Amino acid sequence: MHTISNLDTAKTTATQLLQVGAVQLRPLQPFKWTSGWLSPIYCDNRLTLSHPSLRTYIKQQLSTLVRDQFPHAQIIAGVATAGIPQGALVADLLGMPFIYVRSEAKGHGMENQIEGRLNQHDKVVVIEDLISTGSSSLKAVNALKKAGANVLGVVAVFTYGFDKATESFREAGLACCALTDYNNLINVASEKGYIVPEQIDTLHDWRANPGQWGAEQQSPEEANS
Amino acid sequence: MHTISNLDTAKTTATQLLQVGAVQLRPLQPFKWTSGWLSPIYCDNRLTLSHPSLRTYIKQQLSTLVRDQFPHAQIIAGVATAGIPQGALVADLLGMPFIYVRSEAKGHGMENQIEGRLNQHDKVVVIEDLISTGSSSLKAVNALKKAGANVLGVVAVFTYGFDKATESFREAGLACCALTDYNNLINVASEKGYIVPEQIDTLHDWRANPGQWGAEQQSPEEANS
Repeated sequence: MHTISNLDTAKTTATQLLQVGAVQLRPLQPFKWTSGWLSPIYCDNRLTLSHPSLRTYIKQQLSTLVRDQFPHAQIIAGVATAGIPQGALVADLLGMPFIYVRSEAKGHGMENQIEGRLNQHDKVVVIEDLISTGSSSLKAVNALKKAGANVLGVVAVFTYGFDKATESFREAGLACCALTDYNNLINVASEKGYIVPEQIDTLHDWRANPGQWGAEQQSPEEANS
Repeated sequence: MHTISNLDTAKTTATQLLQVGAVQLRPLQPFKWTSGWLSPIYCDNRLTLSHPSLRTYIKQQLSTLVRDQFPHAQIIAGVATAGIPQGALVADLLGMPFIYVRSEAKGHGMENQIEGRLNQHDKVVVIEDLISTGSSSLKAVNALKKAGANVLGVVAVFTYGFDKATESFREAGLACCALTDYNNLINVASEKGYIVPEQIDTLHDWRANPGQWGAEQQSPEEANS
């Protein structure tokens, strides 16, 4: 499963992400992701932390998702680093223990891959800020499973809704639910005038085939996403 | 300045850190820090995140320190990664914007050294979990200053109280205040029977000269601190 919360939350979250500039859409001047992909979208949900009312809205919505989808959750785990702040806020609101997980173990021995206390069979929900291919979340999930956790699922602020992520979560037998996704974002962006109607097709083309899209674009800007 | 909050908070925090095992004292079987130092103490404040009532106590005490010591603070900054969770909780409680700072910029361009929104002259208070030599906090402070921030000071959960940290903060003209420190911890540990009175001198010797202490100790255990 790889779903969104509900339409109201999806639209409100998308509206707010656009409003604070956490998401930028530039179909004519694509960003270049570090993976090498060209992309008409740049998403930095960490900027939401600088906006207390939006940050609180996201905390509340993530907490509602955890409570509704995973009523047996015992521990909240944030994926380092971007999932840590919201993960801690969700754990605080729900009065639950918090741990955080690095996608990869550090080599220099100063840091554990999992920080905080985790016991065998603990029921864990993972908080992530952003799902693209899903690989960073799944690395964290695998680290938790290896440590004996019973991982119930992943809750995220935003997902691109890539088929690759859907497949990866299905293969892992893991539920993943986000507050909003790329399709809702494009709809809201169009309604609010962030993009013009002629750009919608090109934006959907990208989501369907992000690896190939825009191969002929010139001079893309390096982006952090 | 490099001070502690007040005696009540210092004692309560120290008691709780010992109780949940976030601090371990082993004067007879020292830990080996990654710096190479042998140490009779191992401190992992991240374990407090797994204890909601202690986590909440620390959040409240850190927030009180920020409000009392830095009433003009506008932004809370957590030092990655251990300062991020409590930093976010403090920002949440105070209703202030939150950013986080890495001690060093990553080379691969996927991450900024400062995540979140920071404007020129913003008045920032830095949240840190642990002060040893102070160098990781000061790296974060310098990154913030370089970005134009007005850094008011550093608030931490625990400090070893090393002279080196005191000097570094004085040189930087920066106030640093912690909830508790090594001396209070040793006092509480002695009162509560975590150590025997004969070990107190050896524990104070270490703090006075951590780099040389225990050079003749055998088979120390590798530790994460």
